[in-house]
Amino acid sequence: MRVDVLTLFPEMFEGVFGSSILGKAREKGICELSTVNFREYANNKHNTVDDTPYGGGGGMVLKPEPIFAAVEELVGRAAEAARTPETAEAAQGADTAAAPSKPRVILMCPQGETFSQAKAQELAKEDHLIFICGHYEGYDERIREYLVTDELSIGDYVLTGGELPAMVVIDAVIRLLPGVLGNQLSAVTDSFSDGLLEYPHYTRPPVFRDWNVPDVLLSGHHAEIEKWRRRQSLSRTLARRPDLLEKAELSAKEQEWLRSERERMRDAAEHTD
Amino acid sequence: MRVDVLTLFPEMFEGVFGSSILGKAREKGICELSTVNFREYANNKHNTVDDTPYGGGGGMVLKPEPIFAAVEELVGRAAEAARTPETAEAAQGADTAAAPSKPRVILMCPQGETFSQAKAQELAKEDHLIFICGHYEGYDERIREYLVTDELSIGDYVLTGGELPAMVVIDAVIRLLPGVLGNQLSAVTDSFSDGLLEYPHYTRPPVFRDWNVPDVLLSGHHAEIEKWRRRQSLSRTLARRPDLLEKAELSAKEQEWLRSERERMRDAAEHTD
Repeated sequence: MRVDVLTLFPEMFEGVFGSSILGKAREKGICELSTVNFREYANNKHNTVDDTPYGGGGGMVLKPEPIFAAVEELVGRAAEAARTPETAEAAQGADTAAAPSKPRVILMCPQGETFSQAKAQELAKEDHLIFICGHYEGYDERIREYLVTDELSIGDYVLTGGELPAMVVIDAVIRLLPGVLGNQLSAVTDSFSDGLLEYPHYTRPPVFRDWNVPDVLLSGHHAEIEKWRRRQSLSRTLARRPDLLEKAELSAKEQEWLRSERERMRDAAEHTD
Repeated sequence: MRVDVLTLFPEMFEGVFGSSILGKAREKGICELSTVNFREYANNKHNTVDDTPYGGGGGMVLKPEPIFAAVEELVGRAAEAARTPETAEAAQGADTAAAPSKPRVILMCPQGETFSQAKAQELAKEDHLIFICGHYEGYDERIREYLVTDELSIGDYVLTGGELPAMVVIDAVIRLLPGVLGNQLSAVTDSFSDGLLEYPHYTRPPVFRDWNVPDVLLSGHHAEIEKWRRRQSLSRTLARRPDLLEKAELSAKEQEWLRSERERMRDAAEHTD
């Protein structure tokens, strides 16, 4: 997968693209991660990329020309690379079609669709992602209308720019690519995929200060441990994120147990009122 | 404000803490941003900070000792600094009490409370924030129970570690501190605070390729521009984030208009079925 990020702050990405899972995925050749400073595509003598908004009001708005020019050059370059003899030869032997899919052009903005794990899985199937990161400025609406394929937001909070949100999306997507995570890692993180919050984890020492590891975890009874963990997952989800229970797959017995837990919690709440 | 981040990947933070708004807030002396590699607090010869989980299962779990030791040293150091003569002198002249508030110890994890703008505002009132970032490992439950004051998640997607989420929270909080944003910037971003999505922005050129800026924005009629922008905000919010409309403050006329818009959208949907 190829990932290009348009930003006025490319230095923000250095540490993140070079470390941990993203750094390893890059070293293994599973993905290429690049930044493009779209100020280099400004077609005016002061290299300005923003201007005041039509109709008045505070703030600045990112102009359409530099962003269109930068994205179109990246798309053209990718199409060019796909036409080189080596690539064509490689494609002949492969199951996939020779023509690469069109890049997804993703605008990070508060108005976007809220990013989710399902969206990460969808994006992980692409060949080429291009992220556009504005930075406190607004975007000229023609960028949204005629250039962008996806608008994404990572949550309902105000950030200084699209850079951190782009890093978040890139991390969530790249770690899903085959070969990026070892089996050990995927086992841990996939525990989230049953739709419940994780049960509590404990490791050595068995007693830290006065605080013990629960006896059941030291018992060696695997069936009991499984049962304890599932119950902990369920009650933690009920307490903290009851909205997740609506979509989770639960047995009839678990649903029965949740009903009694809910009643217990309601009774306790009434008692303290 | 003082911000400390416990992480095994301090290099991830360099570019982000040095650039843009965070870099400027640091230069102005409004905040101190530091990372602590908690591997330095491992009390064993191999400097291990994680171990296998009690009760079996895949993955590794972060041990309690190094994280308790690192946090307690940071808390102690901050209390010490607050007791030095210069600080005491400075505090005498200030309106605020001399004793600093206890640090908030924030664990970034998928089980946490979903981060929001209200939480950012709450954290912006603190003197000292300590973030704990795990990295694909789980956390020993005693860290949650006896050390941590807040557990935060930035959204429902799986990331490799707590580092990017910590950066997101830090950016959202620091930009709220007095003196960090100029008036110009705050004007733009505060447009989100009316609870609706932003209206479309346009800047020069008035015609880019075949695409015009809407006439109303070039008209100079301020009342018409205001009306157009508010309608655009409302209809964009209705189309993309109808959940936000429940909390937004709307006039009776706007509610009436929204009702007719909803009907129009429903009719259009039935027509295409």
